[in-house]
Amino acid sequence: MANEAPHGQGSEEPAPAPELKNRHPRDIAEEMRDLPLARVRDILRKLPDALAAEVISELPQDVQVRLFESMQVSRLSGIVGEMFSDDVADVLGHVSSARLREIMSGMPAEEARQISDLLKYPEDTAGGIMQTEVISVSEHLSIAEALEILRREEEDLPNGIFYIYVTDSERRLRGVLRVRDLLFRPSNLKIRDIMVPEVRAVSVHADQEETARLFRAYGFSAIPVVDDFQRLRGVVTADDALDIVEEEATEDMQRMVGLSGEETAETPWIQSVRNRLPWLYVNLATAFLAGWVVSLFETTIAKYAVLAIFLPIIAGQGGNAGTQTLTIIVRSIALGDIPETHHRSILMKEILVGLLNGLAIGLVVGGISWLWRNDLILGVIAFAAMALNMVAAGIAGVLIPFGLKALRIDPALASAIMLTTVTDVVGFFLLLGLAALVLSYFPSAL
Amino acid sequence: MANEAPHGQGSEEPAPAPELKNRHPRDIAEEMRDLPLARVRDILRKLPDALAAEVISELPQDVQVRLFESMQVSRLSGIVGEMFSDDVADVLGHVSSARLREIMSGMPAEEARQISDLLKYPEDTAGGIMQTEVISVSEHLSIAEALEILRREEEDLPNGIFYIYVTDSERRLRGVLRVRDLLFRPSNLKIRDIMVPEVRAVSVHADQEETARLFRAYGFSAIPVVDDFQRLRGVVTADDALDIVEEEATEDMQRMVGLSGEETAETPWIQSVRNRLPWLYVNLATAFLAGWVVSLFETTIAKYAVLAIFLPIIAGQGGNAGTQTLTIIVRSIALGDIPETHHRSILMKEILVGLLNGLAIGLVVGGISWLWRNDLILGVIAFAAMALNMVAAGIAGVLIPFGLKALRIDPALASAIMLTTVTDVVGFFLLLGLAALVLSYFPSAL
Repeated sequence: MANEAPHGQGSEEPAPAPELKNRHPRDIAEEMRDLPLARVRDILRKLPDALAAEVISELPQDVQVRLFESMQVSRLSGIVGEMFSDDVADVLGHVSSARLREIMSGMPAEEARQISDLLKYPEDTAGGIMQTEVISVSEHLSIAEALEILRREEEDLPNGIFYIYVTDSERRLRGVLRVRDLLFRPSNLKIRDIMVPEVRAVSVHADQEETARLFRAYGFSAIPVVDDFQRLRGVVTADDALDIVEEEATEDMQRMVGLSGEETAETPWIQSVRNRLPWLYVNLATAFLAGWVVSLFETTIAKYAVLAIFLPIIAGQGGNAGTQTLTIIVRSIALGDIPETHHRSILMKEILVGLLNGLAIGLVVGGISWLWRNDLILGVIAFAAMALNMVAAGIAGVLIPFGLKALRIDPALASAIMLTTVTDVVGFFLLLGLAALVLSYFPSAL
Repeated sequence: MANEAPHGQGSEEPAPAPELKNRHPRDIAEEMRDLPLARVRDILRKLPDALAAEVISELPQDVQVRLFESMQVSRLSGIVGEMFSDDVADVLGHVSSARLREIMSGMPAEEARQISDLLKYPEDTAGGIMQTEVISVSEHLSIAEALEILRREEEDLPNGIFYIYVTDSERRLRGVLRVRDLLFRPSNLKIRDIMVPEVRAVSVHADQEETARLFRAYGFSAIPVVDDFQRLRGVVTADDALDIVEEEATEDMQRMVGLSGEETAETPWIQSVRNRLPWLYVNLATAFLAGWVVSLFETTIAKYAVLAIFLPIIAGQGGNAGTQTLTIIVRSIALGDIPETHHRSILMKEILVGLLNGLAIGLVVGGISWLWRNDLILGVIAFAAMALNMVAAGIAGVLIPFGLKALRIDPALASAIMLTTVTDVVGFFLLLGLAALVLSYFPSAL
């Protein structure tokens, strides 16, 4: 969280165990990473609530959950009080419901309400990622009165605060204050008169990817989150967006090749098998489809085994070229860089690129096969199949993601698997079909 | 930039052409995207310098460069004065040197110095992405004196400012101030006494990816940038990090499949061909390697064409499984999630996962081929080749990126191409080799 930054830059906590003094919570958490849970609890026991809260926030979520399941509720509620509400909610979303009730009942009513609010929102919405710690003052106050309130609430002021929002009597968002106005404008002015009235807010229901796009597009440092009644409910900060952007990029990369999107190098093997096997079976079905195409030409291959050599070359090249196109399109869609109106021109471009690369690669493939096997007709067949398959690859690389998007499906989803299916099937048909055709007319040709 | 946010939330510029009033610069830029350059210049002419500066900052870089090349220097220097130094430097890095001198000479000396400073640093370093607009006060001042200075400099204060840094008489970075201390501590205190002395800064030479990782790891909102003498030179904000993270993710995705990393759906076709063709030729070489393996068994295939059907199945499945592993490893490395000490256990895990998935998939492949061709031995061969190739895929998926990293090469670089080469070659050797072996012992077996 942005608000942890100054803590990160020198915390004001009472001094903990000496070896942990002046250490950033993240670094402490980093070293706990391989320790058994019991040992982690021992270390946390030595830390004051506030520091323990920060350290816990930096631990992997599964560890946080196990801690929340196993720590004493009394200590836990002390720590929870120091954590950001969004972090708490993320963990509580995964503890047993019995434990959840225990912990919630140990909390101050107001905080419990905030948390259960957050638990209402799916994790991938603005409501799910926002923090409820947000500073707001009434538009009716004077600068002096507002400062007085802020001073009284200093303890709750997130560190490194950079936006103070303005609300009306219904807590509806009315504007935003700039610190420099608070600092430098005559203190008898009314908040209403110094606030910036246009505030771009997002709904609690807004998709997290959409929210992150706002940061990227407008370079905000924070975006206020409002409920259906325009009431200020929380704030999302630029570094929350940072996590989202990384999550989403990881998801796109993984989904293209048939992965859940949440797997990491450290995911337990059993889970990895469960994640990957389903899509491998899907891929298997498509592979048999390609194999079936080959089987149609079994007699041709029997007569002319050299064709088998070129199967992987034609198909592989097509697959690689198509994946290049696919990767660019999927990523551009994810970054919101493709206006609807450009779809057609992009398709045309990729056809052209596929044709040019196809000719360039096809000539080499044809040439080599001609010289290698000293067989001109084989060379011509290989050239044609290669060039045409690269065009097909370009078309598939554009149409698959655009098609998925049109169907409101994630354009990345298993798209690489679909693409290679196309390039395999088309490639095999072209190579073997052309060969069979030639053989049928000139049985002695090859 | 974080600092544009409040502008984005209601600019205080003199009112521009009515239809552009209350429009966010980003939105204006969005609509210019398809207009001819001349028309863009017309629109910009209608805008006050400050707004024009923001709009230009939102345009695609190539358009910015063409504008800088073609606009009147007099107007340009007015606009440049309103742009963030890092944005200006990004553009000036691409204009003709003659034009660069013209523009620089039109600038106030101090600004020209800052810009040429930035031009010194490679675009992918902290120095290259930092903005030089950074607020700092001397540690020797009192809060009152500091506020007085800030008030005088109000005009230059970036909006949405959230960190004020503290420097000594040599402009060396000494600490950071929190706004709430300026607001609420007794104004006779010395800056030295209220500043947070521990500040995490990065060197101007720091790699941008490393810098972004700091934001991710510690959740800072801004990180000060210092030169080799610890002098404060600029600041990088969390939303700069946002752009970096997206760039890097795009790069990883693209490089895996042999792309430059900078291509988008809108890249001109000629450039796309230039970007992609080289790696396609590399892939072609590897494809012929695979083809050559097949050619070693040409006689076997001639005798037994059905093997050709299973070539794409065995190879394709291996390639897909390996790409799953590869994608996870490459991404985890990029996010810095893999400690050296875990390499071995990760390799072991992927071997296990490969074996289990291999058995699961192999049984189906073997079973189908047995029933389809009513040939048990074929089934056994297909099963063995499939299972073993999936293990090889797991091993390659881990060793290729780790190997590239050990060689200080980007772990993503063309890794998917290398991986499919391994799975093709190994898969073909296994299937055809096993078949040839069986045939050599039991000529009538298949």
